[in-house]
Amino acid sequence: MMTRARLVALAALLAVFLLPGRAFAASGGPDLAPLLLALVVVLLGARLGSALAERFGQPPVLGELLAGIVIGNLGLLGWHGLAGMRDLAGLELLAQIGVLFLLFEVGLASEVGQMLAVGRSALLVATLGVIAPIGLGFLVSRGFFPGHHPLTHWFVGATLCATSVGITARVLADLGRTKSREGRIILGAAVIDDVQGLLVLAVIKGIIDSVDRGQVFNAGSVLLIVAKAVAFLVVAVALGRSISSRVFRLGARLRGEGVLLSLALAFCFSSAWLAGLLGLAPIVGAFAAGLVLDEVHYRDLRARDRAQRDVQTLLKPISTFLVPVFFVLMGMRVDLSVFGQAGIVGFTAALIVVAIVSKQACSLGVLDKGTDRLAVGLGMIPRGEVGLIFAGIGSGLMIGAERVVDPMIFSAVVAMVAATTLLTPPLLAWRLKRLPVPADE
Amino acid sequence: MMTRARLVALAALLAVFLLPGRAFAASGGPDLAPLLLALVVVLLGARLGSALAERFGQPPVLGELLAGIVIGNLGLLGWHGLAGMRDLAGLELLAQIGVLFLLFEVGLASEVGQMLAVGRSALLVATLGVIAPIGLGFLVSRGFFPGHHPLTHWFVGATLCATSVGITARVLADLGRTKSREGRIILGAAVIDDVQGLLVLAVIKGIIDSVDRGQVFNAGSVLLIVAKAVAFLVVAVALGRSISSRVFRLGARLRGEGVLLSLALAFCFSSAWLAGLLGLAPIVGAFAAGLVLDEVHYRDLRARDRAQRDVQTLLKPISTFLVPVFFVLMGMRVDLSVFGQAGIVGFTAALIVVAIVSKQACSLGVLDKGTDRLAVGLGMIPRGEVGLIFAGIGSGLMIGAERVVDPMIFSAVVAMVAATTLLTPPLLAWRLKRLPVPADE
Repeated sequence: MMTRARLVALAALLAVFLLPGRAFAASGGPDLAPLLLALVVVLLGARLGSALAERFGQPPVLGELLAGIVIGNLGLLGWHGLAGMRDLAGLELLAQIGVLFLLFEVGLASEVGQMLAVGRSALLVATLGVIAPIGLGFLVSRGFFPGHHPLTHWFVGATLCATSVGITARVLADLGRTKSREGRIILGAAVIDDVQGLLVLAVIKGIIDSVDRGQVFNAGSVLLIVAKAVAFLVVAVALGRSISSRVFRLGARLRGEGVLLSLALAFCFSSAWLAGLLGLAPIVGAFAAGLVLDEVHYRDLRARDRAQRDVQTLLKPISTFLVPVFFVLMGMRVDLSVFGQAGIVGFTAALIVVAIVSKQACSLGVLDKGTDRLAVGLGMIPRGEVGLIFAGIGSGLMIGAERVVDPMIFSAVVAMVAATTLLTPPLLAWRLKRLPVPADE
Repeated sequence: MMTRARLVALAALLAVFLLPGRAFAASGGPDLAPLLLALVVVLLGARLGSALAERFGQPPVLGELLAGIVIGNLGLLGWHGLAGMRDLAGLELLAQIGVLFLLFEVGLASEVGQMLAVGRSALLVATLGVIAPIGLGFLVSRGFFPGHHPLTHWFVGATLCATSVGITARVLADLGRTKSREGRIILGAAVIDDVQGLLVLAVIKGIIDSVDRGQVFNAGSVLLIVAKAVAFLVVAVALGRSISSRVFRLGARLRGEGVLLSLALAFCFSSAWLAGLLGLAPIVGAFAAGLVLDEVHYRDLRARDRAQRDVQTLLKPISTFLVPVFFVLMGMRVDLSVFGQAGIVGFTAALIVVAIVSKQACSLGVLDKGTDRLAVGLGMIPRGEVGLIFAGIGSGLMIGAERVVDPMIFSAVVAMVAATTLLTPPLLAWRLKRLPVPADE
């Protein structure tokens, strides 16, 4: 196909192009070139990373993080060509939008009914699985960094609290155990502790904001934040479904292609915007939008699509494009050189141990008889999206001139996420394979 | 569904939320809130606009432009709530990426073979349809604005040269005339004049850049630009296909979901990046990437997708999200208040007349006997994407302190695009319906 002569011609042409320099470089509008190059690197890196991860039976997200770590630390090998990439505003923006899509998808995959049906066990498992990691994370962080502000320790604890629904669900599905009793409890609890984690985030972020403004922080403010967050979720669940049903019923009157996707995006973005307006993270709004949006609402619109695609199917290409941007960027922000500093390796190791051990408290929450408590505890280990999002938000927050999550702690948190993500699939698979296959499978 | 009590509860909760102000507003990272609100407005505006356009038998792009004009000129009605939106950096960035996707899709829909097969007629039609509008556009612009720099007049001419493939193709398809002799010539010529238009853009932009730098402009520089652009396209066509075939064959070895889409995006972005590096507009690269990317290259990857989707189908949701951002933003930048200034209404009217009349020169290029020349001339009228892109680039270019395309001229160009887009469907339909249906339909 590509003859030698053609290759020579290509090389010659490239040389001609590149020699005169950038005499006529684009000057109109913002210069897209750095972002385009960054997107190519991110897309290819994410692909190679996730293909490698899958080859070793690991979840793709792990490969994307590792790809980011490699890209972000090429400077250690003496090559700084991609060094500016991690601070590119356009890449950050696309990553932020990507994570909105991820949480919207997680919300779509969860159902209000499913959350209520698994009942008391899931709630208890989730609650224990939030309290224990926060407490232990706080203690470990204070032990290693006694000079830091106490809020830093609470933030470290918070990054440990949320189980990654995506990774857990993926492992259960791969093993055909999604509908087992253990599987349902883990999934229900993972959804609940996501929500609890977002509440914790809202509270801690609110406290930090007010401390940073020099305001005296009081219990009333905490209550206000919790009230806002709970009220937002309650309103979203109680009214969101009828709002969503109305929006899509009205939308079905609109002519044109792509109405379903545009309305779903507008629904997600407006919910995220509203959450932001109330001082919550926009991802809480995106998650809530996904939770209340139901296939029934857009039956008429879906019927108009030739392939009858649902919102998840329509979102998939957008998230294939944007979600890896977030994870690769998170990986790029891991500064491997900090692991040379005293104490950080020990801190990271301690954080990983605490991440694993603290979630075993979950097994105490299993009320149903005949359920394997160890499997539930192991299934709750993986931290993922939410932990990274917390760390990302924390690294953007300041108390005075001090970063709440400094680069050292950030790198340790990402290492913790990678380790739990790496360890869970083999551990959970080992345990589940020893259990009888449930009757309904 | 939504009882009165619930509505009252919602209103009360919203009031409680909004009263304490934004005490705990998000402070970590870039503030997403304005962009989220802008996206909601853009998505809903584009939907309403295009639904309205379709109701009146007009192409959706017209509705999106009009929606943007309405959103951008609410200030005239005394409401300035959305005034900052047109200058939002995040929205500009998403629009730029959106237009890359549009040109990538146009490239995918065109085929190298198809361009060569329609042969001499299409080439002649295209060339006449580029020369006549540029010449007449130059004269009109100079007549109305004798004080402006001559390059402004050339830029106005350039915005008139490219026929909108999207709009033409859509009208032909709606009437079942895509494969008629007239249809094939129009489509072939539209593709060729897009490429010629991009060459014209590259030349004019290069000249403006060097004039702005105070360099003496000489014929050698023009030749260098043309050589670069032609060489890029020749290399893209000659080598792009074997590069693309290799990339996707290698990619077929990668495990994981979404490999096809990620590789296609990386291919598009790297081609756009390379074009930018050579001083061409990144959209030229995106178009070239689409032109050389062929279904055959990714047969193996496509077979892995459950629904066997091709790249176009996978891109559709992304372009449904991002492409309207570009057109609505273009509409938002139309300042209706400039039409109150002396001369501008006359200039706009003259521009519209020139846009229609100049493309009738195309009918002289039809060499095939028995082909309706008027239908070809009418089919070449619509200006769309490329004209707006030119105007957008022109408004970002400066000669000294003078904007090459000032807000007045920009608004006139957008009005011209809207008028040609609006007039073509009824005119072309009227003419084609009088012709016999071709045998192969």
